[in-house]
Amino acid sequence: MSDAVAQSPLTIACAQMRPEIGLKHENVEKSLRMIRRAHSLGAQLVVLPELCNSGYVFASRSEAFALAETMEGETVLAWLDIAKELGVTLVAGFAEREGDRLYNSAVLVGPGGIIGRYRKLHLWGEESLFFERGNLQVPVFATPFGRIACAICYDMWFPEVFRLAALQGADILCVPTNWVPMKNQPRELPAMANILAMAGAHSNSMFVAAADRVGEERGQPFLGCSIIVDCHGWPVAGPAGAVDEEIIVAQVNLSDARKARQLNAYNQLLRDRRTDLYQEMLGTSMLRGPG
Amino acid sequence: MSDAVAQSPLTIACAQMRPEIGLKHENVEKSLRMIRRAHSLGAQLVVLPELCNSGYVFASRSEAFALAETMEGETVLAWLDIAKELGVTLVAGFAEREGDRLYNSAVLVGPGGIIGRYRKLHLWGEESLFFERGNLQVPVFATPFGRIACAICYDMWFPEVFRLAALQGADILCVPTNWVPMKNQPRELPAMANILAMAGAHSNSMFVAAADRVGEERGQPFLGCSIIVDCHGWPVAGPAGAVDEEIIVAQVNLSDARKARQLNAYNQLLRDRRTDLYQEMLGTSMLRGPG
Repeated sequence: MSDAVAQSPLTIACAQMRPEIGLKHENVEKSLRMIRRAHSLGAQLVVLPELCNSGYVFASRSEAFALAETMEGETVLAWLDIAKELGVTLVAGFAEREGDRLYNSAVLVGPGGIIGRYRKLHLWGEESLFFERGNLQVPVFATPFGRIACAICYDMWFPEVFRLAALQGADILCVPTNWVPMKNQPRELPAMANILAMAGAHSNSMFVAAADRVGEERGQPFLGCSIIVDCHGWPVAGPAGAVDEEIIVAQVNLSDARKARQLNAYNQLLRDRRTDLYQEMLGTSMLRGPG
Repeated sequence: MSDAVAQSPLTIACAQMRPEIGLKHENVEKSLRMIRRAHSLGAQLVVLPELCNSGYVFASRSEAFALAETMEGETVLAWLDIAKELGVTLVAGFAEREGDRLYNSAVLVGPGGIIGRYRKLHLWGEESLFFERGNLQVPVFATPFGRIACAICYDMWFPEVFRLAALQGADILCVPTNWVPMKNQPRELPAMANILAMAGAHSNSMFVAAADRVGEERGQPFLGCSIIVDCHGWPVAGPAGAVDEEIIVAQVNLSDARKARQLNAYNQLLRDRRTDLYQEMLGTSMLRGPG
């Protein structure tokens, strides 16, 4: 064994963009421009927001249905083309249709094609009126530079998602999101969405890259504050502003995620879990929560 | 049903004290002085640090053993007396002995006697040389003002602990702790221990009251930064400083914890958990974590 420190350098970008509800062609074109800009800044992995091709605030199920596409649709095809052209890997949110079912999904594409897909597990608000809940668990995808898992927006409110990703070896959690402002957010503290990213990264020793959208849609403002967090839980890029489109970029060493789990001679973050006690309590239908 | 908002007002204090290793009598006397001061500030519930009667950095198992006491020992007796005298409820960390076994424990005492006991589930560093791992799960105790669960220090690094408390109905998690500084803490952001408290409170809709110690012991500095966080995840008292003994106090309405779990017409924080997916994944020995 050598004392050399293994390196998995990676330049990550989050593209904080402003989609317009319904203008799918324009949104995809904009996403391509932002991917080109991120690539010109050195990015090898680019994360784009939730539902960045369709917009978020659907007026009806039929509107959402009309905007949704299959994995073979023009949006994913456009992302496949640019990933191949530039040699970049993308994680991007889109409205997915499978038969008559709709999912709030993220696709992971690389220069060699589709790497995987994630479907939002925890639906927020009126999303329940349009989408099915995700049915693909928390998959972890191997890539040439490391292991990637995905979460979308409200999924981050569930520490289980971070844990399931980390326990399957994810080095980084990529989060396409459409965070909305919270009414009681203190001005002097980070946004709660950023705090959840920091806590989840730290307590799982895993990078987190969250790309939010900006702009207001049918009266609904969005938060911005896209952020890249290292595996110790500290921001290495962002938080971005609340108003403007913006690309944030960070150079990281993905190897750190695996190394940092060994905290000292006695503690390894994931192995210290008291599964002997959790197993009767968590993940079972026994505990559905109090009234 | 009435539109009136139910109230469970409670004044909470965290006593950030500086125990001295081995000086048990002096430490207990100091804890009593701080409890009196907290009571004079209106506190009905007072949280004290981890191992606040014994000190933390034991030189040997025999030193830890000599300082440990049973639930019938002089430390718990002193806390029972003052709880009865002042009509306060206490959550305080002490070195517990049961036969030849040692536990890093917290006792919960009220004016009417002992309410319960918690034993630290996740041991940190050299604690593993002296203590057994906790064997009492994450109990939730009913009190006249609401439901209380406990965690001790490194337990907070496990979101499972917050979840197990919340799923059993805890309104507040009381955390006796001996946080130590982290080397890569950015000056402009809250301490990571505080961030974990905020994230755990927010994603479980549960108050958190964490009482840390200060001072240096055998070369080990401690963090201070005691904090009381509301059920939305925002600090309502503290963080305290890093150096001095200090009492932080907050008036809260414990009812808010139960109300705030209903986020909107569609989302209830604890019921939105995808137990259908977690159950095969979390809490089982299937997933012990990657290398």
